[in-house]
Parts: sequence; structure tokens; C-alpha cells
Amino acid sequence: MDLFVRVRELSVALCAPLEIEDYGVQPMADASPPKWHLAHTTWFFETFILKEFVPGYQPVHEQYEYLFNSYYNGVGTPFPRVSRGFLSRPTVAQVLDYRVQIDEAMHELLEGCDNEEIWRRLVLGCHHEQQHQELLITDLKYNFGHNPLYPAYVSAPVLPAARTPADMRFVEQSGGITYVGVNATSDSFFFDNEGPDHQVLLQPYAVGDRLVTNGEYLEFINDGGYANPQIWLAEGWAHQLQQGWQCPEYWVQRDGQWFEYRLDGLHPLRLDLPVVHVSGHEAFAYANWAGARLMTEFEFEASVPLQTEGGYLEQGFFHPMACPEASAGSGGWIKQGFGQTWQWTASAYGPYPGYEPMAGTLGEYNGKFMSSQLVLRGASCVTPQTHARRTYRNFFYPPDRWQFTGIRLAKNV
Amino acid sequence: MDLFVRVRELSVALCAPLEIEDYGVQPMADASPPKWHLAHTTWFFETFILKEFVPGYQPVHEQYEYLFNSYYNGVGTPFPRVSRGFLSRPTVAQVLDYRVQIDEAMHELLEGCDNEEIWRRLVLGCHHEQQHQELLITDLKYNFGHNPLYPAYVSAPVLPAARTPADMRFVEQSGGITYVGVNATSDSFFFDNEGPDHQVLLQPYAVGDRLVTNGEYLEFINDGGYANPQIWLAEGWAHQLQQGWQCPEYWVQRDGQWFEYRLDGLHPLRLDLPVVHVSGHEAFAYANWAGARLMTEFEFEASVPLQTEGGYLEQGFFHPMACPEASAGSGGWIKQGFGQTWQWTASAYGPYPGYEPMAGTLGEYNGKFMSSQLVLRGASCVTPQTHARRTYRNFFYPPDRWQFTGIRLAKNV
Amino acid sequence: MDLFVRVRELSVALCAPLEIEDYGVQPMADASPPKWHLAHTTWFFETFILKEFVPGYQPVHEQYEYLFNSYYNGVGTPFPRVSRGFLSRPTVAQVLDYRVQIDEAMHELLEGCDNEEIWRRLVLGCHHEQQHQELLITDLKYNFGHNPLYPAYVSAPVLPAARTPADMRFVEQSGGITYVGVNATSDSFFFDNEGPDHQVLLQPYAVGDRLVTNGEYLEFINDGGYANPQIWLAEGWAHQLQQGWQCPEYWVQRDGQWFEYRLDGLHPLRLDLPVVHVSGHEAFAYANWAGARLMTEFEFEASVPLQTEGGYLEQGFFHPMACPEASAGSGGWIKQGFGQTWQWTASAYGPYPGYEPMAGTLGEYNGKFMSSQLVLRGASCVTPQTHARRTYRNFFYPPDRWQFTGIRLAKNV
Amino acid sequence: MDLFVRVRELSVALCAPLEIEDYGVQPMADASPPKWHLAHTTWFFETFILKEFVPGYQPVHEQYEYLFNSYYNGVGTPFPRVSRGFLSRPTVAQVLDYRVQIDEAMHELLEGCDNEEIWRRLVLGCHHEQQHQELLITDLKYNFGHNPLYPAYVSAPVLPAARTPADMRFVEQSGGITYVGVNATSDSFFFDNEGPDHQVLLQPYAVGDRLVTNGEYLEFINDGGYANPQIWLAEGWAHQLQQGWQCPEYWVQRDGQWFEYRLDGLHPLRLDLPVVHVSGHEAFAYANWAGARLMTEFEFEASVPLQTEGGYLEQGFFHPMACPEASAGSGGWIKQGFGQTWQWTASAYGPYPGYEPMAGTLGEYNGKFMSSQLVLRGASCVTPQTHARRTYRNFFYPPDRWQFTGIRLAKNV
Repeated sequence: MDLFVRVRELSVALCAPLEIEDYGVQPMADASPPKWHLAHTTWFFETFILKEFVPGYQPVHEQYEYLFNSYYNGVGTPFPRVSRGFLSRPTVAQVLDYRVQIDEAMHELLEGCDNEEIWRRLVLGCHHEQQHQELLITDLKYNFGHNPLYPAYVSAPVLPAARTPADMRFVEQSGGITYVGVNATSDSFFFDNEGPDHQVLLQPYAVGDRLVTNGEYLEFINDGGYANPQIWLAEGWAHQLQQGWQCPEYWVQRDGQWFEYRLDGLHPLRLDLPVVHVSGHEAFAYANWAGARLMTEFEFEASVPLQTEGGYLEQGFFHPMACPEASAGSGGWIKQGFGQTWQWTASAYGPYPGYEPMAGTLGEYNGKFMSSQLVLRGASCVTPQTHARRTYRNFFYPPDRWQFTGIRLAKNV
Repeated sequence: MDLFVRVRELSVALCAPLEIEDYGVQPMADASPPKWHLAHTTWFFETFILKEFVPGYQPVHEQYEYLFNSYYNGVGTPFPRVSRGFLSRPTVAQVLDYRVQIDEAMHELLEGCDNEEIWRRLVLGCHHEQQHQELLITDLKYNFGHNPLYPAYVSAPVLPAARTPADMRFVEQSGGITYVGVNATSDSFFFDNEGPDHQVLLQPYAVGDRLVTNGEYLEFINDGGYANPQIWLAEGWAHQLQQGWQCPEYWVQRDGQWFEYRLDGLHPLRLDLPVVHVSGHEAFAYANWAGARLMTEFEFEASVPLQTEGGYLEQGFFHPMACPEASAGSGGWIKQGFGQTWQWTASAYGPYPGYEPMAGTLGEYNGKFMSSQLVLRGASCVTPQTHARRTYRNFFYPPDRWQFTGIRLAKNV
Repeated sequence: MDLFVRVRELSVALCAPLEIEDYGVQPMADASPPKWHLAHTTWFFETFILKEFVPGYQPVHEQYEYLFNSYYNGVGTPFPRVSRGFLSRPTVAQVLDYRVQIDEAMHELLEGCDNEEIWRRLVLGCHHEQQHQELLITDLKYNFGHNPLYPAYVSAPVLPAARTPADMRFVEQSGGITYVGVNATSDSFFFDNEGPDHQVLLQPYAVGDRLVTNGEYLEFINDGGYANPQIWLAEGWAHQLQQGWQCPEYWVQRDGQWFEYRLDGLHPLRLDLPVVHVSGHEAFAYANWAGARLMTEFEFEASVPLQTEGGYLEQGFFHPMACPEASAGSGGWIKQGFGQTWQWTASAYGPYPGYEPMAGTLGEYNGKFMSSQLVLRGASCVTPQTHARRTYRNFFYPPDRWQFTGIRLAKNV
Repeated sequence: MDLFVRVRELSVALCAPLEIEDYGVQPMADASPPKWHLAHTTWFFETFILKEFVPGYQPVHEQYEYLFNSYYNGVGTPFPRVSRGFLSRPTVAQVLDYRVQIDEAMHELLEGCDNEEIWRRLVLGCHHEQQHQELLITDLKYNFGHNPLYPAYVSAPVLPAARTPADMRFVEQSGGITYVGVNATSDSFFFDNEGPDHQVLLQPYAVGDRLVTNGEYLEFINDGGYANPQIWLAEGWAHQLQQGWQCPEYWVQRDGQWFEYRLDGLHPLRLDLPVVHVSGHEAFAYANWAGARLMTEFEFEASVPLQTEGGYLEQGFFHPMACPEASAGSGGWIKQGFGQTWQWTASAYGPYPGYEPMAGTLGEYNGKFMSSQLVLRGASCVTPQTHARRTYRNFFYPPDRWQFTGIRLAKNV
């Protein structure tokens, strides 16, 4: 219940710096308007809890079921995704009112409720909303970052000052048989795609001890990385040619100098910061160029420790930070695993052995997306900290760049 | 000067019923956001008057020249038209402030100004803004009319009650040599595409004395008009197949009953009202089906009288009205020529003999669009009345439907 | 009957230089395979004469009605136009056999036939086939001209040697009222779109006395013609940007030198030859740049004499020739009007006053294409000579370049 | 050497039933013309052997390197893949002559040759050509199967008569640690993507003992399989909606009866034959509907025996056969693993641990395609028998249907 209150409040709080005009913009099909995120996360509770468990429940608005359905065919044909930015009505005020009404109805229902399924869905809805909190920020960044005025979301970010990170070291891992995934009897929350837990057999490998930096990525660019088809996957090469990519999303070149749009505005490129907003294809090409490769998702899960300090949405930097210097004796420590950038893996997103989607319409949550996507591991600077897990499997298409996606290298041993 | 003040005020007044959220939506490439119309019309005065005639003029914002340029290559590459809806910034307040600043600068410049070119451009800018007033309303209608909530722009329209119009009569015209277009020495304002005046030779013809109604168009639909390729132009047939058209834009069928979205909301279809929001292709097919044809633009100019009462933007109906009943002895009177709907003609939009575009960048205003479009004559229920002229040549592509476009029939004699 | 025999033989004779492989290629949607032209022209006689007038007629093949229908919805949905190149069957031999069978059936029917409608359709079918003879050559040129091997269709063309044409002169015309079009009672053949004849009123004008040359067009290119939006129509500018046009179709630049693919192979660009294979948009921009304009179709009809010597398909050059030098005293003679290149006009393709399409399915021949296209006048080096007429109205879309289309200038007086 | 001779001869022999017209058709981007396959496989030997190892080698034609390069950027930008069908020249005769010249040059080089790399590439080139033999047939089938005349490639196929296959049984497998892939020191030929060999850990599972039949797939159709989004992957659902799929490729419904185009022509659908030409998305949806799942590639490799009799290209059926009845006591025998249809697996196509592409340009052969595709296992009725291996990894995109792709089910235990 406490989680519910905190999550619901945070979504609204994240919108505090917005003008009314910002709530409605969908600058590309993938990047939904903030207003839609606020409404859809509310719709989730109304649809999967209130409508199913409150006898005689009257929907707040008969059209909201249609308007704010993302992709659940079990609830009916959703409003076309590409048109979310065309809905100037309901207004922001009406959507916020929708949130209030649903929250009140939820509180009423939960008061003394002992239906386990309701509580289970409540937690699911909270984690669902946390996902949308991250998306709300990434989608807003896409909007602001493509507006020639480059508006800032946060006025005074105070990212720690620049410093040169230590050289990347590769930390060797012995591989062997290891358990991955989450056991269905776990008390903690997890998505269905994280289970069943099972054993996998890993070959020995080595992991880069920090993220790739802007400075390192700039070397790749200056060495003709975007002009050399031999280091790219065929799909990636075709895609970047077609898109005219010459640098990560949000890098801007003016009079020969590089800038980067961050949520605190457009600034000269800082070479010490992790490179971010690269596609899976760019990550693959970079790794190839660097004589390395991307990790598999299980190598990541087996070796990268969950970090609890630094980074994450709550920190309020809205950008990944430079790698902390190695403390004495910490040579083997794998850093920046969580809370800075998602890390592309070489693993296609698919079902674990014995995977079963949730029953009913909620089964459309994860399972139906298990094709053509890659798993990303870790968590980013705009992931809520309580949302991060070592078993977490994020997934995006190899050409996607608008998430906070970065690069961690691995090598065979 | 009076015109300037009135036009500038009307643009803002037209937005009074809007929520902030409505100002930014671009529901398709052709339909720009209200905010953009408010800014672009202001940009026009800044670019073509203040920047050229005020020594040392400092632009309100260095990026506005780029952001609010519609299509004048002479001013530089414009901001991509399809992305106008992605600009949540500048905000509505900032755009309104832009208007105020430009208006003040204009007043200062015009005070005692005796530069004829400035006054000439002032009037041009006012007529330009009047065009955008109409577009602002049609674009807003496209937004609202495609929102499943069908919001109303005007709450209480009070369209006159339904009545059955008299049968359409065809009024014969003798043709012959007639002058069309405007003489360059005319004191009244006109666009460059309305001149030079010149003689044309018309064959005898007959003109329908009123607009085609919804009821008549419904007969066309019920007679399989959308399923019979023989009555369509090849392009029109291919286009409607691809679009799946089965009725005019804004008609909605629910449980076998027809509704029409008007700016006062979604209502049961009134058979007495003029059919509106049909494409040139549909107008052509309808005329063919009805055993008639569309008029040429010169037939229209030669025979249809300018009307000053009824209709027009100032009337506040925002929808064409039913045809007034013929008064006694008025059998030959051609009605609804102006102020209800634009009327598709069979004439391709091209230059008059001896046509010369305006000099310089303003020459891009009209001339460069003289291909693939049709001329529309008359004026609509959202055209400012002072903007209507018998020589006026509006132009749109044959598939366009989002303007208030209707059908007037003609016949050979 | 003689016409029928000659036309039918010529179609086959034109294919003599082809390899079997060449008959099936459709290198773009507009450019049909030679085999298809041979079959479709045959289908025309079978469909509109044999099937209608021979009692108990048995089609040669039940599927041919579907496969070789171009666009007559009255005969059923045609085989998709873009897929004509995918039909490896029927084979060339089968198509030639189809021709033989239909020719035999036609001879049998025509023997002593006194049905006027049959004879009328026979002549129509012959003129239809002449149109496809021209298309067969232009479509083949598109195939060969885009094959990196640049195969030649004719091995020894013997185009007259290069010579510098005299400067272009503008021949003044007084305008006034003139008859255009063909009277329905004419004994000669004409297409329905050439009538009814009627009077038009022309302003005074002047006509360029020859076609624009490659040399003149090269000046336009070197003067930045393709980089200056101010001289283009908006549609043309957008289209050429998207297509990356920098020169006419079939011009090739290698190591800074210009070549032109002609049907006798790839050769260094001859500056004296007429520029050909330019779009209507390029013709417009060139004229604008040259301080002139394109003609209207009626100006052309009123002033350009039909030429009977030189040029045309029968000549066997398959390329327009350089302008003959003015003979003494021929200063006012307008040259190259027919038999070299089609000439883009400024006139949109539309119906003449009182135009009526042919009855029935044949009414789809011309009328339904009267939108978005421009009229071209004259005739080209691959037009059969008996197909050329002063009243002839050819029509293509402004971006089309694969026909033998050139430029004649005009001016206001 | 013997392999080389046999493979080269078979490619030509496979074209024996073709008309010249058939050699040039590319009915969709993926389906190259037979002529191109004949040329490209020859190009492979010329490019990677003759040009590299014959001193002073003179290419047969300077443009062939460009025209017949498939996708090797290391050899230069290839001729656009979608335009292969536009090359009527070189002719079939010229391409066959190209084959003869290269074969002669190869024989000369190989005579007494002891350069191991040459022999290694020779074998690679032979297996490469075998892949194209299969593609030549599948691409030809796409051409013929979409021609309304449905021409037959083989006139008298004599597929064994229809019989009802025994019910599918699921054969349980214990899983555990197993070796997969090929060891680099293996004497036999294998592609780089089949190695390195390594251990994987499998959970217990069960394998369907035969392929899914047309009859079973028809039940899926009749049960609304194409109308139920809940059983499809999201990508698959969107794709089939857009494509309008209602059945496998090559199924045709006429007057309510089902037919299937096979390479021996269009025939009533035989329910006993394996379903073939289904996409990976359809295979997934079918398995879901059937309460099963697709196999992983390692489950397949670990459990499905290589078959040497029946099926394969050499058999000359060009279509998968019905499942042989279980012989007594053969209950656990997994049938139809090889030589009938490729079998979609649930495994994304990616690199094995420690995978290294071949050095140089040949490294583009397999590695750069390791994204967004699925592995298919087994071999089809048009795979050369010597080309089949248990470790073989075929790969196509989930929406692809033009290969002989079928369905084998698996289950968790």
C-alpha cells in the first residue's frame, strides 16, 4: 500500500517541471506523451483491478478503456498507438482528476482487503507504473532533445565535475553452471519473463569493469566507425545508412565541436561520461571495433553486482555519471552495472525454458514481445531504484536509441 | 491600420474556446496547430516588414525565423512541416507574447509611415492572416473531429432548424467573351494569382442554383457511388480504394444511422444541409453520377454573385447552412455562392496569361503551387467576410477533404 | 485493313533486335515489358471486337482477358500493373502465337464486313497499338539505359554529324480567337479527348523556333539550376530533392565528363542535340531560368506546323536530331515541332467544353485520366508518323521522364 | 574435385525444365532470378579463388564483379539486390558461357594444386552453390506459384499416394549436458556459424515424432487461428493483419475448396502432406494453439536423427512427402527430421560462444546476419542431400514463407 502511494505520487511529481503544452506531445511513435503515461498507468489499475473486483463498478469515462489501452487485445482493439499525440482531450486536468478518482477507488477497495490476487495485481500495477515513469522521462527527452530550442527539464543538475576515468579493465570470470532467473515461489516481485529459474552453462569470459565513455566512443567515430561495413551487422549497417547516423542520439555537432543534449540542456560533450543513447547495432559495431563483444544476459546476471548507491531516478541527475575512481584494492570490482545506463546484451529476448505467461489478458504483458528484440540488463539513471533487479530483463529492438542505453564490453578468455 | 488591428484581434479571439492542450496538436501533416498559426502569421509581419524596414531591428527570438517559416525558401530552409506538432515550446503564453511584441513594433513603425511598400505588405499580411484564420478553424476541426470524444468548439451553435430545400434548378448562361481576373491597377486588395485580368471565351452553360445537400449525396452513397469505378477519375478511384472512403469526412455511421461531426459536436446527419468536406474526386464522381459536371472557374466567376449576408466566419455558425427558400420570382437567382462552402471547380490551378509572381521571396506566396491542384471558388462558413471576392482563387489537391469544400453542379447547354 | 496489317507487322518488327530475355523486363511500374505490349495490343482487338462481334467466339486463353487488361474496370479487375514483369509465362512464343491467332480471326471477321462500328474500332485499335509501339521503345530504353552494361538496341544509328544550331529566335504570334480541336464529323481518326472543336481566345505570344538543346540545358545545370528552389514549382523542387536529380534521365557523368545513353549505346553528350527525357518540372524550371515560359497547348496547336519529313519512328534514328539550319528566308519558320521530342506544355490535361467519353468500357480510354497531368504536344522520334496530328493531346505526369520529352519555350509579348 | 564437378553440373541440370523467359524473373526482393543464381555462384569461385590465386588473372567481364556480388561489402558496393530482375543482359547464353569459362579456369588451377586454402575455398564454394540450388528452386516456385497460369516445373511428380499419418506422439528426452556444434578440427565441411562446439545444458523436453500436416493446420485455420491475437507474437499478429494472411503461402481457395500449388502444379490440398511454407510467426501461433511450443535449436540437434533416405533435392519430388507409417516397435523414432521441410525453432540466430567469422571478406558470409532471425533446423525436399547436417543452422526472418518451412512441435516435460 505504501508502495502504491509512493509510486502514484512520484509519477505526478515527475511532471512538476512541465508546461501544459509538454504533456501532449508524441514526437515519434515510440515516445508517448506524458499525459498518456499518466492516464495509461491509471487505466491499468482500473481495468485489471477495479473493473474485475469491484461489483457494479462504473468506469470514470466510457471511452477511457479504449483511449488508454496500450496493446492488450484482450481488452479490445486499442486506440492507434501512433495517434496518442493527437488527443488534446481529455485535458491534463481531466487526466489528473482521473488519477484522483481511481486512487480513491483503489484505497476504498484495498481497505481491509484480503484477496491475494488483488494485492498481487496491485504490486504488478506499481511496477508497471515504474516502467512508465522511466518511459515518461525518456519520451520527454526525445521531445525536448529534438526541439531546436533544447528546453531543459531540470534547471540545475549539478552533475559531478568532469574527471578522467581509469582505463577499462577486463575482469575474468570462470563460467560453469549457474542458476539464473527467479523461482516462482519467491516472495519478491518479478515479471513473468524472469522465470522459471534454471541452470545454464557458461564458458569462461571477461567483463569490462565500467561502461564505455563518450571519449572512447568518439575515438570510434573519428576512426571511421560509421563508414566501415565490416564491423557492423548487416541490418545495422543498412539501418544507419538509411538514417544517416553519424553519432549517438542527442549528440550535436556545431562548427566542428560536439555537444550533447542532456535533460539539463545542451552542453559541450563531456568525454568522461558514459556514452548513452546508442542503438544495439552501434553497441555491436563499437564492441567489434574495440576487439571485444557484448555480454550475454546470463554472463551479466552471473557477474555484475546490483548497486544501490548512485544513479537511479531518485538521484535526480537524469543522466549517467562518470565512473568513480577505483578505490584501493578494488581492481576486480565491476562498476556502473545499475543506475547509470541500460546495457545492450548479445542475447535475443526469448522465453526461459518452461516459461508460462500470466493467465488471461495480463499474459499479453511480456510474452508476446519475444521476437526480434535484444535483452538489456542493468538499470539506468531514470529507473526507479526499487525497480532494479539482477534478474531484470529489459528489451528493445536493436535500432532503438531513445532509452538510456549504453555499452559494456566482454571478451572470451 | 484598422484592418490590421481587427485581424490581429480576431485570430486570438478565435482561440478563446481552446484549452491550452488544443493549441499544439497537428493531427495530420496538412493541419497545423493553432499555436503555429498564431506564430506564423506574426512571423510574416516580422520577416517581411520589420526585418526589412526597421533599421537595426532585433528579432524577438533568433530561432523563430526558422521555426515559423512555412515554405519560403528565400528565408532559409523551413522547420519540417510535419513536425510542427512536436514543438511544445515555445508555449502558448510565449507565442501570445510574441504577437504582442510584434504588434507593438508594427504600431510604432506604422505611426506616420508613408512608405507605400510597407502599407502594401501590411494589407498582404492581413489577408495572409485571414487565410490562416480559416485554416486554424479547419485544422482544429480535423483534430476534434478525429478525437473519439468529439469535443465541441462552440457549445451553442443554433443552426437554423432543418427544412427541405427546393429542388435544384439549372440556370442557363449564354457564355461568350467575358473579362475575368483583376486589373493590376485596382485599388482593392487581391492576390497576384488573380491577375492579370483578361478576356476568356465561354461556351453556353447552366449552373445549379444551390449547393448539393447531404440528402442528395446520401442518395449517391446508397446508389453505390463509392463502388462504381466508371464514374470516377482513375486517380480518385485508386485513392478512395486505398483510403477506404465510404462517405464524406466527418460522417460517422453507428448502428446503421448517420451522424456528422460539426464544430458544435456530433449530431444526427441533417439532410437539408449542404454536403461538405468532400474531396475534388468525390465532387467529380458525384457530378458524373448526377448527369452533370463541375463548373470551370471562369463559369463560376462569370455567373455566381458575391453574397454579403449569411454565412462567413463572423456569423459564428462554423457550418454551412441550408439553402434559403426561393423568394417569389427569384427563380434565376444562384444561391449559396459565398459564405457556405468552397466549391470545387474542374479547373486546374495555373497562371493567367501574363502572370507574374510578386518580386523576391514573396513571389513564393502563390506561384510555386501551380501544379496538380484544382481551383475552388466561392468562400466558406469559416472565411472572413472581407476576405471573399468573386475573383478569388482558392486551391487544393483533388484528394483534400479537410477544408469546408462542397459541390455545385453545372451542365452543358 | 492495310493500316491494320502494317501496324501489326511493325510491332513485331520493332522487337527484332531483342533477345528473348529482353521481352519480359519491367524495370519500373510505368515501363511495361515488350511482351506485355505485344499481348495487350492483341487483347484490345480480341476484347473490343472479336468478343463483341463474333458469335460464339472462343477466347484464345481464358486467363488472357485478365492478364492483359491494362486498366479497363469495365472488363474486370486488371492483373496488377506493377507485376507485369513477373509473368515469365506465357512465353514469347506463346504471345506471338496469340497475335497470329487473333490476326487470323480478325481477317476472317473483316472479310467483307460492313459493320461500321467494327471498322471504327479497328482503326481505334490500330492507333492504340501505335501508342504502344512508342511505349514499347521508351520502356525498353528505360530497361537498357539502367543496365550497367548499356546494351544497344540499334547497332549503327548514323545520327547526322554534330553541328551547332543557330540561336533560338522567338516568333511572334498575334493571338485572338482561334478554333482548336477536331470536329466530331471529321473523317480522319482522332481520340475523343481531341474534341469537340471549339473557339478559344489567345493573348499575343511568341514561340521559340526550335527545341532547347543539350548545350543550353547544360548551362542551366552549370548555373546551379538544380540547386535554386526559386525557379521551381514547389512540387518539382520537393520531387527532385527526393530523387536526387542532377541532370536529365540517361545523362551519366564519369570522371567529370558527360555521357548520354541513346538507343545506339552510351556516347559522349552531344551539345547540339535537343535535350530529351526531362520531366515537366525540369522543363518548367528551365524555362523560368531562361526568362521564358512553357507554351499552352492551344498556343502550340495554333502556331506549330505539322512536319512530315525527318524524325518519327520510321526514320529509325530512335533519337531526336539536331535542328536543321535555317534556310534562307525561313526566319519565321517554327522547327522541330513534330517527330523529334514531345513538348511539355503549361496546360493541365482536362476535358474540352462539351467533352463526352466514348460509350461503354472504351470510355475509360482517355477521360478518366484527366487529373494531375500535363498535356504534351508534338510527337517524338519514336512516334509512328501516321500517328501525329496537330490536335493530338499526349499526357503525362509532371515528374515523368522516361518518354522522349523535351522543351520548347514561349514568351509573352 | 568430384564434388565441384557434380555441384556445378547439378545447378545447370536443375534449369533444364525452364524456358528462357523464366531465368530472369525476380518476383520479390528475396527471390532472385535463376540466371542470377547461376552467375553469382560462378562469381564466388572467380572472386574468392581465381582473382586471388591466379597471377595476372583477367576477369571474364569487368562488370560481373559488380553485377553478381550479393552482399560482400569487402568486394565493393553490390548491384542493388531488388534490381536483379531488371538485368535482361547478360543473356542466359552469356551466363552459361561465363560458367564454362570459370569452370575451365578452375580446372586448370586445381590441376595438381596443393594449396590447402584453395581447396578449402573450393569446398566452401561448392556448399555455397548448394545453398543457391535450394534457393533457385524456392525462388522459382515463388515465381510460378504467383503466376495465375500456375505453370508446373515438373510434369510428372508421382508423389506417393495419400495416406493418413498416425497421430503425432511426443517422444520424451531427458535433457542434461550435451555437446553441440562442430569442432574446428573436424575433417568434414561445416560453416563457421556451426562452431565452436561447446556444451549446453538442456531441461527435459518432449519432441513431436513427425511434422505437422496440412490437415492439422487446417483445423487451426477453421478454429479461427488467424483471428485470435492471443496466440500470436505481437510482431506476427501485426504482420499477418497487414499482409492479410489467411493460410500458408501457396494455398488457394476456390469456391470454398482448398488447393495447394506444388512444383508439379495446382492440386487439391492433400491433408496428409506436411504443412509447408508457413512463416515462423505462423509456426509459433500454431504451436501455441496446439498447446505445445517450437523446439530450440539445441533440443533439435540433440534429439532428431539425420535421415539419409527419402526426401532431399535428388529425390526429385520437390515437395515434402507424407510421414511414413510407424514400423512395428518404432514408437520412439523421430521422423521427417531431414529432407522434407526446414523446421522453425524458437532459437534466435546468434553466435556460439567463442564464435569467430572467417578472416577477410569471406567473414561476411554468415556472421553479419546474426540479428532478428530464427534458426531453422533439418533440411528440406529441395536441399541437396550432401548439404544436410545435424549441426546445420539455417536462418530466416520470422515473417519469411517462401522457403520450404514447416512445423515440428515440442513440449516441456
